[in-house]
Amino acid sequence: MGRDHPDADLHPEATGLAAATVKAHSAPHALKLYSGWFCPFVQRVWIVLEEKHIPYQYIEVNPYHKPQSLLDLNPRGLVPTLQYQEKPLYESAVLCEFLEEAFPENKPRLMPEEAYQRAKTRIWTDFVTSRVIPAFHRFLQCQGGGEEVEEKRREFLSHLKEFTREMDETGPYFLGSEFSLIDVIIAPWAIRFWVFDHFKGGLGRWRVWLAAVEQRKSVIETLSEREHYLPIYQRYADDKAQSELAKATRAGKGVP
Amino acid sequence: MGRDHPDADLHPEATGLAAATVKAHSAPHALKLYSGWFCPFVQRVWIVLEEKHIPYQYIEVNPYHKPQSLLDLNPRGLVPTLQYQEKPLYESAVLCEFLEEAFPENKPRLMPEEAYQRAKTRIWTDFVTSRVIPAFHRFLQCQGGGEEVEEKRREFLSHLKEFTREMDETGPYFLGSEFSLIDVIIAPWAIRFWVFDHFKGGLGRWRVWLAAVEQRKSVIETLSEREHYLPIYQRYADDKAQSELAKATRAGKGVP
Ligand SMILES: N[C@@H](CCC(=O)N[C@@H](CS)C(=O)NCC(=O)O)C(=O)O
Ligand SMILES: N[C@@H](CCC(=O)N[C@@H](CS)C(=O)NCC(=O)O)C(=O)O
Repeated sequence: MGRDHPDADLHPEATGLAAATVKAHSAPHALKLYSGWFCPFVQRVWIVLEEKHIPYQYIEVNPYHKPQSLLDLNPRGLVPTLQYQEKPLYESAVLCEFLEEAFPENKPRLMPEEAYQRAKTRIWTDFVTSRVIPAFHRFLQCQGGGEEVEEKRREFLSHLKEFTREMDETGPYFLGSEFSLIDVIIAPWAIRFWVFDHFKGGLGRWRVWLAAVEQRKSVIETLSEREHYLPIYQRYADDKAQSELAKATRAGKGVP
Repeated sequence: MGRDHPDADLHPEATGLAAATVKAHSAPHALKLYSGWFCPFVQRVWIVLEEKHIPYQYIEVNPYHKPQSLLDLNPRGLVPTLQYQEKPLYESAVLCEFLEEAFPENKPRLMPEEAYQRAKTRIWTDFVTSRVIPAFHRFLQCQGGGEEVEEKRREFLSHLKEFTREMDETGPYFLGSEFSLIDVIIAPWAIRFWVFDHFKGGLGRWRVWLAAVEQRKSVIETLSEREHYLPIYQRYADDKAQSELAKATRAGKGVP
């Protein structure tokens, strides 16, 4: 975890529109987001904060060169970590629901009102975390050629198709006309799928969804410049990344 | 998945106090629990139904010999599956929160009121599902001797210790004097740890917790006789089980 962690050498801060968002949230505040500008798990929480106009302080840390301040809050040493009323909280999906519940007055509400729709949100959140993301990484980190990479590709696409089949027919968002938590949960990966040049696919409903989500203000304003993500994904594509997620993927496991 | 699935040959129905609970819920009802009497994931949901006195119909299915009625509701073919207002829901942890939200009048409330405590419940629910249960299965299914099994044992115990450290000091329950959802989430495994004769350990606070949970009416009344669980766990201990969980464990993965 020291200075010589091979992944520690990433661009140190947000760029593009995300840089302005960071700047607007640099003043000290009781609600602190420990963040890595490049991290899709962070972006989930960041989107929720922006959508709901919740006041917060953005704190950039490098999770591959963990400062003691992060480890003191989160023994797992992962971002996103939140500090709220002096107490730590972590796990991106938990943080999204937490913000919804701790700031009930802040609109829009991202969790649907109805118990069945809430359960549906949680079932498909679990699906994204336990199926889509691991398959994305197995595909990305695959070093085999021909049939091997084809199989990973098929597996990844079949999960995306299963997810897409659950979408409201008209959309454009997953549950219908309103942007909601399940959109937030997958958006950070969906907008990164450009890392596969060859990812086009005939997923009509998926493209309608993606077009809507890509234009969402909160999504755009938490995104840095592509050139700075590239070296990070290159390390995954060369299967040289040493993040917990890269290692878990190599071991056939899920999200850490 | 056919009749000849090696795990399909289990005792066909609940016994002991669970048999009486099944009998009391055999009449048709709009809320249906598709269950396997032996399944710890089912028991989570079953405990919540019993705790909150929610009316339901208990339907026994063998998930290793999946009837079409189950597959129609849940393409994953896993129990627990719930049918609610003609619509299917699944994933045990999601179902527990769903019942809490869909039946807000039914006491006791198992989710704490306060947003921070709710987030804490969800962080440690995730910990149980992604860390404790896979480690339990790696230990249980381990075929190596000496140092190999010792390592699995240490890993499992260290997760239990981490979980225990988070408990309210006085207890007896995880969050304090009230039984709540996080107790439900781990209870079905905790009360099955007798499968390791050698599991004693010096976890004082854990034993206080376990003594309280083991005596909980909802826990006792959803438990069958030990002799019928034994052959099921024996197949795991011999690493011959073919359930999705057994296979995932063999592949180094988490809960399916
Ligand atoms: N389950 C966590 C995963 C978070 C995660 O893996 N974050 C990465 C950055 S994208 C991290 O902090 N990695 C540090 C490491 O791998 O040591 C969540 O959902 O918040
Ligand atoms: N993630 C699921 C897991 C449920 C599960 O694995 N249930 C087992 C019985 S204990 C099952 O239905 N197994 C059928 C199979 O392995 O094919 C949940 O939490 O509900």
